[in-house]
Amino acid sequence: MNKDLMTLKPIGYVREGKIVLNPKWAKGLKGIEGFSHILALFWMDRAHKPDMLIQPKSRMKFPAIGFLATRTAHRPNPIGFTVLKLLKHKGNTLWVKGLDVWDGTPVLDVKPYTKREEAKSYRIPPWVKKLDKLETDPLRRYGS
Amino acid sequence: MNKDLMTLKPIGYVREGKIVLNPKWAKGLKGIEGFSHILALFWMDRAHKPDMLIQPKSRMKFPAIGFLATRTAHRPNPIGFTVLKLLKHKGNTLWVKGLDVWDGTPVLDVKPYTKREEAKSYRIPPWVKKLDKLETDPLRRYGS
Repeated sequence: MNKDLMTLKPIGYVREGKIVLNPKWAKGLKGIEGFSHILALFWMDRAHKPDMLIQPKSRMKFPAIGFLATRTAHRPNPIGFTVLKLLKHKGNTLWVKGLDVWDGTPVLDVKPYTKREEAKSYRIPPWVKKLDKLETDPLRRYGS
Repeated sequence: MNKDLMTLKPIGYVREGKIVLNPKWAKGLKGIEGFSHILALFWMDRAHKPDMLIQPKSRMKFPAIGFLATRTAHRPNPIGFTVLKLLKHKGNTLWVKGLDVWDGTPVLDVKPYTKREEAKSYRIPPWVKKLDKLETDPLRRYGS
């Protein structure tokens, strides 16, 4: 594979909160129901070019931070990443909990969630905790 | 952004176990040192086309599983994903622990690790645990 030609193709799309793969990849999901959680990668097709620095919630007095230290969708490669609880798998469809992307969003990859993803005693900065207290949508909280 | 044209550009490369971004993105890392762990996305440029079903370790008697239920690099979109402990950040360079990719691998994205990635009481299938017992490289264990 040529590293100068990095082109993606969707393996499926988000449909009504479910992950619906192209039927040709259905067989590649065999056994995924053995895992309680999955990682899903999306192409955030509504994203725009990144702003280098971001002021978390404009009305607050946090120092501006770099976009790579945030989870904004507006990045050089707008790949969204989410950990999802897998509720059900049938054919080319995955029923999941916690999906927070637009309907029709292209799906790039699905991977099983394993021990590798579990960071023991990790640390997040105070501004994340403060912002979470203001966030009313639990799906949009990062560190609470 | 056009969803029919999903083209990636590296924001940096893996150099001697470190993540070295293009200097133009250095400012975008501001504040990342507030997080103890990061997520990194890579373009697995040595990957080949996926095999639909995979026999975990050929000599063993596990049922074949779909490639999407494994962490093989050989996927329609060969995007590697890793959780890394962040040891140090200076300029455009991130010193990390636990990086298990080839030197020169293109880096697609860096994101902070947050509570969202922590799946409480997750479940992995028996074959993952059995394989891990045979794996001598701790970086390659999934569920032990």
